[in-house]
Amino acid sequence: MRRIHVIGIGAGDPDYVTAQAISALNDTQVFFAMDKGDAKDDLVALRRHICERFIEQPGYRFVELPDPTRATDVHYEQAVSDWHAARARLWAQAIEAELPDGACGSFLAWGDPSLYDSTLRILDRVAEHVEFEFDVIPGITAIQALTARHRIPLNDIGEAVLITTGRRLRDEGVRGAAVVMLDCECSFLGTPADTRIWWGAYLGTPDELLVHGTVGEVGDRIAEIRAAARERHGWIMDIYLLRTAD
Amino acid sequence: MRRIHVIGIGAGDPDYVTAQAISALNDTQVFFAMDKGDAKDDLVALRRHICERFIEQPGYRFVELPDPTRATDVHYEQAVSDWHAARARLWAQAIEAELPDGACGSFLAWGDPSLYDSTLRILDRVAEHVEFEFDVIPGITAIQALTARHRIPLNDIGEAVLITTGRRLRDEGVRGAAVVMLDCECSFLGTPADTRIWWGAYLGTPDELLVHGTVGEVGDRIAEIRAAARERHGWIMDIYLLRTAD
Ligand SMILES: C[S@@+](CC[C@H](N)C(=O)[O-])C[C@H]1O[C@@H](n2cnc3c(N)ncnc32)[C@H](O)[C@@H]1O
Ligand SMILES: C[S@@+](CC[C@H](N)C(=O)[O-])C[C@H]1O[C@@H](n2cnc3c(N)ncnc32)[C@H](O)[C@@H]1O
Repeated sequence: MRRIHVIGIGAGDPDYVTAQAISALNDTQVFFAMDKGDAKDDLVALRRHICERFIEQPGYRFVELPDPTRATDVHYEQAVSDWHAARARLWAQAIEAELPDGACGSFLAWGDPSLYDSTLRILDRVAEHVEFEFDVIPGITAIQALTARHRIPLNDIGEAVLITTGRRLRDEGVRGAAVVMLDCECSFLGTPADTRIWWGAYLGTPDELLVHGTVGEVGDRIAEIRAAARERHGWIMDIYLLRTAD
Repeated sequence: MRRIHVIGIGAGDPDYVTAQAISALNDTQVFFAMDKGDAKDDLVALRRHICERFIEQPGYRFVELPDPTRATDVHYEQAVSDWHAARARLWAQAIEAELPDGACGSFLAWGDPSLYDSTLRILDRVAEHVEFEFDVIPGITAIQALTARHRIPLNDIGEAVLITTGRRLRDEGVRGAAVVMLDCECSFLGTPADTRIWWGAYLGTPDELLVHGTVGEVGDRIAEIRAAARERHGWIMDIYLLRTAD
Protein backbone atom coordinates (compact mmCIF):
# COMPACT_ATOMS: atom_id res chain seq x y z
CA MET A 1 0.00 0.00 0.00
CA ARG A 2 1.18 3.53 -0.78
CA ARG A 3 1.26 5.87 2.22
CA ILE A 4 0.70 9.61 2.13
CA HIS A 5 1.16 12.28 4.79
CA VAL A 6 -0.53 15.64 4.48
CA ILE A 7 1.81 17.77 6.57
CA GLY A 8 0.94 21.20 7.95
CA ILE A 9 4.25 23.10 7.93
CA GLY A 10 3.02 26.18 9.79
CA ALA A 11 2.20 29.59 8.37
CA GLY A 12 5.56 31.27 7.82
CA ASP A 13 8.26 30.56 10.40
CA PRO A 14 10.20 27.31 9.80
CA ASP A 15 10.29 27.04 13.62
CA TYR A 16 6.50 26.51 13.58
CA VAL A 17 7.16 22.96 12.38
CA THR A 18 6.07 20.40 15.00
CA ALA A 19 7.91 17.31 16.25
CA GLN A 20 5.20 15.24 14.56
CA ALA A 21 5.78 17.01 11.24
CA ILE A 22 9.54 16.44 11.57
CA SER A 23 8.95 12.68 11.94
CA ALA A 24 6.64 12.70 8.92
CA LEU A 25 9.18 14.67 6.84
CA ASN A 26 11.83 12.09 7.71
CA ASP A 27 9.46 9.28 6.74
CA THR A 28 8.95 10.68 3.21
CA GLN A 29 10.59 9.61 -0.05
CA VAL A 30 8.63 11.84 -2.45
CA PHE A 31 7.32 15.36 -1.84
CA PHE A 32 4.50 16.38 -4.13
CA ALA A 33 4.61 20.13 -4.50
CA MET A 34 2.05 22.49 -5.94
CA ASP A 35 2.75 25.54 -7.95
CA LYS A 36 1.58 28.62 -6.03
CA GLY A 37 1.28 31.45 -8.54
CA ASP A 38 2.99 34.73 -7.66
CA ALA A 39 4.26 33.64 -4.28
CA LYS A 40 5.75 30.53 -5.86
CA ASP A 41 9.46 31.28 -5.58
CA ASP A 42 9.36 32.34 -1.95
CA LEU A 43 7.07 29.48 -0.93
CA VAL A 44 9.07 26.87 -2.82
CA ALA A 45 12.20 28.23 -1.12
CA LEU A 46 10.60 27.93 2.32
CA ARG A 47 9.48 24.38 1.61
CA ARG A 48 12.99 23.39 0.50
CA HIS A 49 14.51 25.14 3.49
CA ILE A 50 12.25 23.19 5.86
CA CYS A 51 13.20 19.89 4.22
CA GLU A 52 16.91 20.69 4.29
CA ARG A 53 16.82 21.78 7.88
CA PHE A 54 14.71 19.00 9.40
CA ILE A 55 15.39 15.91 7.27
CA GLU A 56 18.38 13.90 8.42
CA GLN A 57 18.91 11.51 5.48
CA PRO A 58 18.91 13.20 2.10
CA GLY A 59 17.50 10.94 -0.60
CA TYR A 60 14.01 12.36 -0.84
CA ARG A 61 12.92 14.08 -4.04
CA PHE A 62 10.42 16.71 -5.13
CA VAL A 63 7.79 16.16 -7.80
CA GLU A 64 6.20 19.38 -9.05
CA LEU A 65 2.48 19.13 -9.76
CA PRO A 66 1.39 21.57 -12.44
CA ASP A 67 -1.61 23.73 -11.60
CA PRO A 68 -4.51 23.53 -14.05
CA THR A 69 -5.71 27.06 -14.74
CA ARG A 70 -8.80 28.15 -12.88
CA ALA A 71 -11.76 29.37 -14.93
CA THR A 72 -12.65 32.97 -14.12
CA ASP A 73 -15.88 33.25 -16.12
CA VAL A 74 -18.00 30.94 -13.93
CA HIS A 75 -19.31 31.11 -10.37
CA TYR A 76 -16.50 30.98 -7.77
CA GLU A 77 -17.54 27.70 -6.10
CA GLN A 78 -18.03 26.04 -9.49
CA ALA A 79 -14.65 27.22 -10.75
CA VAL A 80 -12.93 25.88 -7.64
CA SER A 81 -14.74 22.58 -7.93
CA ASP A 82 -13.79 22.06 -11.62
CA TRP A 83 -10.25 22.98 -10.79
CA HIS A 84 -10.17 20.42 -7.95
CA ALA A 85 -11.38 17.70 -10.33
CA ALA A 86 -8.65 18.60 -12.83
CA ARG A 87 -6.05 18.62 -10.08
CA ALA A 88 -7.26 15.27 -8.74
CA ARG A 89 -6.60 13.67 -12.15
CA LEU A 90 -3.09 15.15 -12.35
CA TRP A 91 -2.28 14.11 -8.78
CA ALA A 92 -3.54 10.54 -9.32
CA GLN A 93 -1.28 10.24 -12.39
CA ALA A 94 1.70 11.61 -10.47
CA ILE A 95 1.14 9.30 -7.50
CA GLU A 96 0.84 6.26 -9.76
CA ALA A 97 3.93 7.18 -11.75
CA GLU A 98 6.20 8.39 -8.94
CA LEU A 99 5.24 6.53 -5.77
CA PRO A 100 6.03 2.80 -5.76
CA ASP A 101 3.90 0.47 -3.64
CA GLY A 102 4.97 0.67 0.03
CA ALA A 103 6.67 4.04 -0.45
CA CYS A 104 5.67 7.20 1.38
CA GLY A 105 4.77 10.50 -0.28
CA SER A 106 3.87 13.81 1.34
CA PHE A 107 2.01 16.96 0.53
CA LEU A 108 3.21 20.02 2.43
CA ALA A 109 0.34 22.34 3.30
CA TRP A 110 1.00 25.93 4.28
CA GLY A 111 -0.19 26.53 7.87
CA ASP A 112 -2.69 23.79 8.74
CA PRO A 113 -4.19 21.50 6.06
CA SER A 114 -7.76 22.09 7.32
CA LEU A 115 -7.90 25.87 6.91
CA TYR A 116 -8.72 27.33 3.49
CA ASP A 117 -6.56 24.70 1.84
CA SER A 118 -7.65 22.36 -0.93
CA THR A 119 -5.23 19.45 -0.40
CA LEU A 120 -7.62 17.23 1.60
CA ARG A 121 -10.56 17.94 -0.66
CA ILE A 122 -8.51 17.04 -3.74
CA LEU A 123 -7.03 13.92 -2.12
CA ASP A 124 -10.56 12.66 -1.46
CA ARG A 125 -11.09 12.77 -5.22
CA VAL A 126 -7.68 11.30 -5.99
CA ALA A 127 -8.81 8.26 -3.98
CA GLU A 128 -11.35 7.57 -6.74
CA HIS A 129 -8.46 6.93 -9.16
CA VAL A 130 -5.65 5.36 -7.11
CA GLU A 131 -5.36 3.50 -3.80
CA PHE A 132 -3.40 4.84 -0.81
CA GLU A 133 -3.69 5.34 2.93
CA PHE A 134 -3.08 8.75 4.43
CA ASP A 135 -2.88 10.75 7.63
CA VAL A 136 -2.97 14.46 8.45
CA ILE A 137 -0.37 16.29 10.55
CA PRO A 138 -1.72 19.55 12.00
CA GLY A 139 0.24 22.80 11.64
CA ILE A 140 0.28 26.30 13.13
CA THR A 141 -2.24 28.42 11.20
CA ALA A 142 -1.95 32.06 10.22
CA ILE A 143 -4.57 32.74 12.93
CA GLN A 144 -2.25 31.53 15.70
CA ALA A 145 0.66 33.36 14.08
CA LEU A 146 -1.39 36.58 14.09
CA THR A 147 -2.46 36.37 17.73
CA ALA A 148 1.00 35.24 18.91
CA ARG A 149 2.78 38.11 17.18
CA HIS A 150 0.26 40.65 18.52
CA ARG A 151 0.32 38.79 21.88
CA ILE A 152 -3.48 38.90 22.13
CA PRO A 153 -6.26 36.43 22.91
CA LEU A 154 -8.45 35.49 19.96
CA ASN A 155 -11.65 35.25 22.02
CA ASP A 156 -13.07 37.60 24.56
CA ILE A 157 -14.05 35.62 27.66
CA GLY A 158 -16.73 33.09 26.69
CA GLU A 159 -17.28 34.81 23.33
CA ALA A 160 -17.39 33.39 19.81
CA VAL A 161 -15.09 34.23 16.86
CA LEU A 162 -15.94 33.93 13.19
CA ILE A 163 -13.29 32.79 10.71
CA THR A 164 -14.21 34.28 7.36
CA THR A 165 -12.99 35.65 4.03
CA GLY A 166 -12.68 39.18 2.61
CA ARG A 167 -15.51 38.47 0.19
CA ARG A 168 -17.87 37.42 2.99
CA LEU A 169 -16.89 40.38 5.14
CA ARG A 170 -17.90 42.68 2.28
CA ASP A 171 -21.17 40.80 1.67
CA GLU A 172 -22.23 40.10 5.24
CA GLY A 173 -20.44 42.57 7.51
CA VAL A 174 -19.37 41.52 10.98
CA ARG A 175 -20.58 41.73 14.56
CA GLY A 176 -18.35 40.78 17.46
CA ALA A 177 -15.01 39.19 16.61
CA ALA A 178 -13.91 37.91 13.20
CA VAL A 179 -10.66 36.72 11.68
CA VAL A 180 -10.51 37.61 8.00
CA MET A 181 -8.36 35.65 5.55
CA LEU A 182 -8.06 35.60 1.75
CA ASP A 183 -8.75 39.31 1.46
CA CYS A 184 -7.13 41.09 -1.50
CA GLU A 185 -9.26 44.21 -1.21
CA CYS A 186 -8.73 45.66 2.29
CA SER A 187 -12.36 44.87 3.07
CA PHE A 188 -11.89 46.11 6.64
CA LEU A 189 -12.19 49.63 5.18
CA GLY A 190 -15.94 48.97 4.90
CA THR A 191 -16.37 48.35 8.66
CA PRO A 192 -17.34 51.07 11.20
CA ALA A 193 -14.48 53.44 12.13
CA ASP A 194 -14.51 52.30 15.78
CA THR A 195 -13.93 48.63 14.85
CA ARG A 196 -10.64 47.46 16.34
CA ILE A 197 -8.21 45.73 13.97
CA TRP A 198 -5.06 43.68 14.52
CA TRP A 199 -3.43 43.21 11.12
CA GLY A 200 -0.42 41.13 10.12
CA ALA A 201 1.36 40.29 6.87
CA TYR A 202 4.17 37.81 6.09
CA LEU A 203 3.72 36.60 9.68
CA GLY A 204 6.57 34.61 11.15
CA THR A 205 8.96 35.68 8.36
CA PRO A 206 11.71 38.33 8.40
CA ASP A 207 9.37 40.60 6.38
CA GLU A 208 6.59 40.50 8.99
CA LEU A 209 4.39 43.60 9.30
CA LEU A 210 2.08 44.31 12.25
CA VAL A 211 -0.39 47.16 12.78
CA HIS A 212 -3.19 47.56 15.30
CA GLY A 213 -5.67 50.27 16.25
CA THR A 214 -9.17 51.18 15.15
CA VAL A 215 -10.13 51.05 11.48
CA GLY A 216 -10.66 54.83 11.64
CA GLU A 217 -7.15 55.44 12.98
CA VAL A 218 -5.07 52.89 11.06
CA GLY A 219 -7.25 51.58 8.20
CA ASP A 220 -5.80 53.82 5.48
CA ARG A 221 -2.28 53.31 6.75
CA ILE A 222 -2.69 49.52 6.54
CA ALA A 223 -3.97 49.87 2.97
CA GLU A 224 -0.88 51.92 2.02
CA ILE A 225 1.59 49.63 3.78
CA ARG A 226 -0.08 46.66 2.15
CA ALA A 227 0.07 48.09 -1.36
CA ALA A 228 3.73 49.06 -1.00
CA ALA A 229 4.71 45.65 0.43
CA ARG A 230 2.83 43.83 -2.28
CA GLU A 231 4.59 45.89 -4.93
CA ARG A 232 8.00 45.19 -3.36
CA HIS A 233 7.57 41.42 -2.91
CA GLY A 234 5.33 40.67 -5.89
CA TRP A 235 2.85 38.94 -3.53
CA ILE A 236 1.38 39.35 -0.06
CA MET A 237 -0.31 37.17 2.54
CA ASP A 238 -2.14 39.08 5.22
CA ILE A 239 -4.76 38.35 7.85
CA TYR A 240 -6.53 40.34 10.53
CA LEU A 241 -8.72 40.12 13.59
CA LEU A 242 -11.63 42.56 13.82
CA ARG A 243 -13.62 43.32 16.95
CA THR A 244 -16.63 45.60 16.58
CA ALA A 245 -17.39 48.18 19.26
CA ASP A 246 -20.97 47.06 19.99
CA MET B 1 14.77 42.64 32.91
CA ARG B 2 12.81 39.47 33.60
CA ARG B 3 11.76 37.56 30.49
CA ILE B 4 8.65 35.43 30.12
CA HIS B 5 7.54 33.04 27.38
CA VAL B 6 3.93 32.03 27.05
CA ILE B 7 4.32 28.69 25.29
CA GLY B 8 1.55 26.86 23.47
CA ILE B 9 2.33 23.17 23.98
CA GLY B 10 -0.36 21.81 21.65
CA ALA B 11 -3.66 20.21 22.56
CA GLY B 12 -2.78 16.68 23.63
CA ASP B 13 0.01 14.96 21.73
CA PRO B 14 3.53 15.80 22.99
CA ASP B 15 4.56 15.59 19.31
CA TYR B 16 2.45 18.70 18.62
CA VAL B 17 5.23 20.75 20.24
CA THR B 18 6.91 23.05 17.69
CA ALA B 19 10.62 23.69 17.12
CA GLN B 20 10.01 27.23 18.41
CA ALA B 21 8.43 25.89 21.61
CA ILE B 22 11.37 23.51 22.09
CA SER B 23 13.79 26.47 21.94
CA ALA B 24 11.67 28.40 24.43
CA LEU B 25 11.48 25.39 26.78
CA ASN B 26 15.26 25.14 26.70
CA ASP B 27 15.56 28.86 27.43
CA THR B 28 13.50 28.59 30.64
CA GLN B 29 14.68 28.41 34.25
CA VAL B 30 11.29 28.55 35.98
CA PHE B 31 8.00 27.05 34.82
CA PHE B 32 4.94 28.62 36.39
CA ALA B 33 2.19 26.02 36.43
CA MET B 34 -1.49 26.41 37.12
CA ASP B 35 -3.67 24.00 38.95
CA LYS B 36 -6.28 22.59 36.56
CA GLY B 37 -9.07 21.10 38.68
CA ASP B 38 -10.13 17.53 37.91
CA ALA B 39 -7.80 17.05 34.97
CA LYS B 40 -4.88 18.25 37.09
CA ASP B 41 -2.94 15.01 37.50
CA ASP B 42 -3.05 14.04 33.84
CA LEU B 43 -2.25 17.55 32.64
CA VAL B 44 0.58 18.04 35.11
CA ALA B 45 1.97 14.69 33.97
CA LEU B 46 1.84 15.76 30.31
CA ARG B 47 3.56 19.04 31.10
CA ARG B 48 6.35 17.26 32.96
CA HIS B 49 6.67 14.69 30.20
CA ILE B 50 7.08 17.47 27.61
CA CYS B 51 9.78 19.15 29.69
CA GLU B 52 11.64 15.90 30.31
CA ARG B 53 11.50 14.91 26.69
CA PHE B 54 12.46 18.20 25.03
CA ILE B 55 14.72 20.00 27.52
CA GLU B 56 18.37 19.07 27.17
CA GLN B 57 19.87 20.56 30.35
CA PRO B 58 17.95 19.70 33.50
CA GLY B 59 18.13 22.51 36.06
CA TYR B 60 14.76 24.12 35.46
CA ARG B 61 12.14 24.03 38.20
CA PHE B 62 8.36 24.16 38.53
CA VAL B 63 6.51 26.71 40.66
CA GLU B 64 2.86 25.77 41.24
CA LEU B 65 0.47 28.72 41.21
CA PRO B 66 -2.57 28.10 43.39
CA ASP B 67 -5.94 28.75 41.78
CA PRO B 68 -8.16 31.21 43.61
CA THR B 69 -11.69 29.76 43.73
CA ARG B 70 -14.14 31.14 41.20
CA ALA B 71 -17.35 32.67 42.50
CA THR B 72 -20.43 30.84 41.23
CA ASP B 73 -23.12 33.20 42.51
CA VAL B 74 -22.38 36.11 40.16
CA HIS B 75 -22.64 36.64 36.40
CA TYR B 76 -20.20 34.44 34.44
CA GLU B 77 -18.13 37.24 32.88
CA GLN B 78 -17.91 39.04 36.24
CA ALA B 79 -16.83 35.87 38.05
CA VAL B 80 -14.11 35.24 35.48
CA SER B 81 -12.93 38.82 35.68
CA ASP B 82 -12.67 38.80 39.52
CA TRP B 83 -10.86 35.52 39.33
CA HIS B 84 -8.37 36.93 36.81
CA ALA B 85 -7.66 39.87 39.13
CA ALA B 86 -7.03 37.48 42.04
CA ARG B 87 -4.80 35.33 39.88
CA ALA B 88 -2.87 38.36 38.62
CA ARG B 89 -1.95 39.27 42.22
CA LEU B 90 -0.78 35.73 42.98
CA TRP B 91 1.22 35.52 39.76
CA ALA B 92 2.89 38.90 40.35
CA GLN B 93 3.98 37.74 43.82
CA ALA B 94 5.31 34.46 42.43
CA ILE B 95 7.22 36.18 39.62
CA GLU B 96 8.79 38.68 42.05
CA ALA B 97 9.73 35.95 44.51
CA GLU B 98 10.90 33.23 42.14
CA LEU B 99 12.26 34.91 39.01
CA PRO B 100 15.51 36.87 39.49
CA ASP B 101 16.23 39.81 37.20
CA GLY B 102 17.54 38.58 33.83
CA ALA B 103 16.10 35.09 34.35
CA CYS B 104 13.50 33.52 32.07
CA GLY B 105 10.18 32.08 33.22
CA SER B 106 7.51 30.34 31.16
CA PHE B 107 3.82 29.63 31.30
CA LEU B 108 2.78 26.50 29.42
CA ALA B 109 -0.61 26.95 27.77
CA TRP B 110 -2.61 23.93 26.63
CA GLY B 111 -3.10 24.10 22.85
CA ASP B 112 -2.57 27.68 21.74
CA PRO B 113 -2.42 30.57 24.23
CA SER B 114 -4.93 32.65 22.25
CA LEU B 115 -7.86 30.23 22.27
CA TYR B 116 -10.16 30.13 25.33
CA ASP B 117 -7.16 30.50 27.60
CA SER B 118 -6.73 33.13 30.29
CA THR B 119 -2.93 33.30 30.52
CA LEU B 120 -2.46 36.36 28.28
CA ARG B 121 -5.36 38.21 29.84
CA ILE B 122 -3.99 37.62 33.33
CA LEU B 123 -0.42 38.51 32.31
CA ASP B 124 -1.68 41.89 31.08
CA ARG B 125 -2.86 42.54 34.61
CA VAL B 126 0.30 41.10 36.19
CA ALA B 127 2.17 43.82 34.28
CA GLU B 128 0.46 46.40 36.50
CA HIS B 129 2.33 44.94 39.52
CA VAL B 130 5.73 43.78 38.22
CA GLU B 131 7.94 44.53 35.20
CA PHE B 132 8.83 41.92 32.58
CA GLU B 133 9.05 41.46 28.84
CA PHE B 134 7.26 38.57 27.18
CA ASP B 135 6.58 36.78 23.94
CA VAL B 136 4.00 34.25 22.79
CA ILE B 137 4.79 30.92 21.10
CA PRO B 138 1.82 29.57 19.12
CA GLY B 139 0.66 25.96 19.59
CA ILE B 140 -1.56 23.43 17.82
CA THR B 141 -5.14 24.00 19.01
CA ALA B 142 -7.80 21.39 19.70
CA ILE B 143 -9.46 22.61 16.47
CA GLN B 144 -6.51 21.49 14.34
CA ALA B 145 -6.26 18.26 16.35
CA LEU B 146 -9.95 17.57 15.64
CA THR B 147 -9.76 18.17 11.89
CA ALA B 148 -6.43 16.31 11.54
CA ARG B 149 -7.71 13.21 13.34
CA HIS B 150 -10.93 13.21 11.29
CA ARG B 151 -8.86 14.14 8.19
CA ILE B 152 -11.38 16.80 7.17
CA PRO B 153 -11.24 20.43 6.06
CA LEU B 154 -12.59 22.93 8.59
CA ASN B 155 -14.08 25.25 5.96
CA ASP B 156 -16.22 24.45 2.99
CA ILE B 157 -14.79 26.24 -0.05
CA GLY B 158 -14.89 29.99 0.57
CA GLU B 159 -17.20 29.52 3.58
CA ALA B 160 -16.94 30.88 7.13
CA VAL B 161 -16.65 28.90 10.38
CA LEU B 162 -17.73 30.04 13.80
CA ILE B 163 -15.66 29.10 16.86
CA THR B 164 -18.03 29.06 19.82
CA THR B 165 -18.91 27.53 23.19
CA GLY B 166 -21.56 25.05 24.33
CA ARG B 167 -23.38 27.80 26.18
CA ARG B 168 -23.60 29.98 23.06
CA LEU B 169 -24.68 27.07 20.91
CA ARG B 170 -27.60 26.49 23.29
CA ASP B 171 -28.49 30.21 23.38
CA GLU B 172 -27.95 31.13 19.74
CA GLY B 173 -28.13 27.94 17.68
CA VAL B 174 -25.95 27.59 14.60
CA ARG B 175 -26.18 27.98 10.84
CA GLY B 176 -23.42 26.78 8.55
CA ALA B 177 -20.26 25.48 10.20
CA ALA B 178 -19.29 25.86 13.85
CA VAL B 179 -16.60 24.44 16.11
CA VAL B 180 -17.90 24.05 19.64
CA MET B 181 -15.56 24.03 22.65
CA LEU B 182 -16.09 24.19 26.40
CA ASP B 183 -19.31 22.20 26.23
CA CYS B 184 -20.14 20.08 29.29
CA GLU B 185 -23.74 19.48 28.29
CA CYS B 186 -23.77 17.79 24.86
CA SER B 187 -25.41 20.91 23.45
CA PHE B 188 -25.27 19.39 19.93
CA LEU B 189 -28.33 17.35 21.00
CA GLY B 190 -30.36 20.55 20.57
CA THR B 191 -29.45 20.96 16.87
CA PRO B 192 -31.53 19.59 13.96
CA ALA B 193 -31.20 15.81 13.42
CA ASP B 194 -29.66 16.29 9.95
CA THR B 195 -26.80 18.44 11.30
CA ARG B 196 -23.48 16.71 10.61
CA ILE B 197 -21.11 16.33 13.55
CA TRP B 198 -17.43 15.38 13.85
CA TRP B 199 -16.72 14.81 17.54
CA GLY B 200 -13.41 14.13 19.31
CA ALA B 201 -12.30 13.69 22.91
CA TYR B 202 -8.82 13.38 24.45
CA LEU B 203 -7.51 14.23 20.98
CA GLY B 204 -3.89 13.37 20.30
CA THR B 205 -3.67 11.14 23.40
CA PRO B 206 -3.79 7.34 23.68
CA ASP B 207 -7.39 7.69 24.98
CA GLU B 208 -8.61 9.54 21.88
CA LEU B 209 -12.25 9.01 20.86
CA LEU B 210 -13.68 9.94 17.44
CA VAL B 211 -17.26 9.75 16.17
CA HIS B 212 -18.90 11.30 13.11
CA GLY B 213 -22.30 11.19 11.45
CA THR B 214 -25.47 13.22 11.74
CA VAL B 215 -26.74 14.31 15.13
CA GLY B 216 -29.81 12.14 14.55
CA GLU B 217 -27.68 9.04 13.88
CA VAL B 218 -24.85 9.43 16.40
CA GLY B 219 -25.90 12.16 18.88
CA ASP B 220 -27.14 9.83 21.61
CA ARG B 221 -24.21 7.50 21.13
CA ILE B 222 -21.75 10.38 21.59
CA ALA B 223 -23.57 11.40 24.79
CA GLU B 224 -23.23 7.84 26.15
CA ILE B 225 -19.58 7.44 25.15
CA ARG B 226 -18.84 10.83 26.65
CA ALA B 227 -20.51 10.05 29.98
CA ALA B 228 -18.74 6.69 30.27
CA ALA B 229 -15.33 8.17 29.39
CA ARG B 230 -15.79 11.01 31.81
CA GLU B 231 -16.66 8.56 34.56
CA ARG B 232 -13.62 6.40 33.77
CA HIS B 233 -11.05 9.25 33.58
CA GLY B 234 -12.57 11.65 36.11
CA TRP B 235 -12.45 14.42 33.47
CA ILE B 236 -13.01 14.92 29.76
CA MET B 237 -12.00 17.39 27.07
CA ASP B 238 -14.06 17.21 23.91
CA ILE B 239 -14.71 19.37 20.89
CA TYR B 240 -16.77 19.07 17.74
CA LEU B 241 -17.43 20.54 14.34
CA LEU B 242 -21.07 20.97 13.30
CA ARG B 243 -22.31 21.63 9.77
CA THR B 244 -26.00 22.31 9.32
CA ALA B 245 -27.83 20.87 6.33
CA ASP B 246 -29.23 24.17 5.00
C1 LIG C 1 -5.14 29.74 1.18
S1 LIG C 1 -5.15 30.36 2.82
C2 LIG C 1 -4.19 29.15 3.65
C3 LIG C 1 -4.21 29.27 5.16
C4 LIG C 1 -3.32 28.24 5.82
N1 LIG C 1 -3.75 26.88 5.54
C5 LIG C 1 -3.28 28.45 7.34
O1 LIG C 1 -3.46 27.47 8.08
O2 LIG C 1 -3.00 29.59 7.78
C6 LIG C 1 -4.08 31.74 2.63
C7 LIG C 1 -4.45 32.87 3.56
O3 LIG C 1 -3.89 32.62 4.83
C8 LIG C 1 -3.43 33.81 5.42
N2 LIG C 1 -1.98 33.64 5.69
C9 LIG C 1 -1.28 32.49 5.56
N3 LIG C 1 -0.02 32.66 5.96
C10 LIG C 1 0.10 33.94 6.36
C11 LIG C 1 1.17 34.71 6.89
N4 LIG C 1 2.38 34.17 7.09
N5 LIG C 1 0.93 36.00 7.18
C12 LIG C 1 -0.30 36.53 7.00
N6 LIG C 1 -1.33 35.86 6.50
C13 LIG C 1 -1.15 34.58 6.19
C14 LIG C 1 -3.79 34.93 4.47
O4 LIG C 1 -5.03 35.46 4.87
C15 LIG C 1 -3.90 34.22 3.15
O5 LIG C 1 -4.81 34.88 2.30
C1 LIG D 1 -10.02 26.10 28.08
S1 LIG D 1 -10.15 25.54 26.43
C2 LIG D 1 -8.46 25.58 25.92
C3 LIG D 1 -8.26 25.40 24.44
C4 LIG D 1 -6.80 25.38 24.05
N1 LIG D 1 -6.14 26.65 24.38
C5 LIG D 1 -6.62 25.07 22.58
O1 LIG D 1 -5.88 25.80 21.90
O2 LIG D 1 -7.17 24.08 22.11
C6 LIG D 1 -10.48 23.84 26.70
C7 LIG D 1 -11.38 23.26 25.62
O3 LIG D 1 -10.57 22.91 24.52
C8 LIG D 1 -11.02 21.72 23.93
N2 LIG D 1 -9.90 20.76 23.98
C9 LIG D 1 -8.63 21.03 24.35
N3 LIG D 1 -7.85 19.97 24.20
C10 LIG D 1 -8.62 18.98 23.72
C11 LIG D 1 -8.36 17.63 23.35
N4 LIG D 1 -7.13 17.09 23.44
N5 LIG D 1 -9.41 16.88 22.89
C12 LIG D 1 -10.63 17.42 22.78
N6 LIG D 1 -10.92 18.69 23.13
C13 LIG D 1 -9.92 19.47 23.58
C14 LIG D 1 -12.26 21.29 24.69
O4 LIG D 1 -13.37 21.79 24.00
C15 LIG D 1 -12.08 21.99 26.02
O5 LIG D 1 -13.33 22.27 26.60
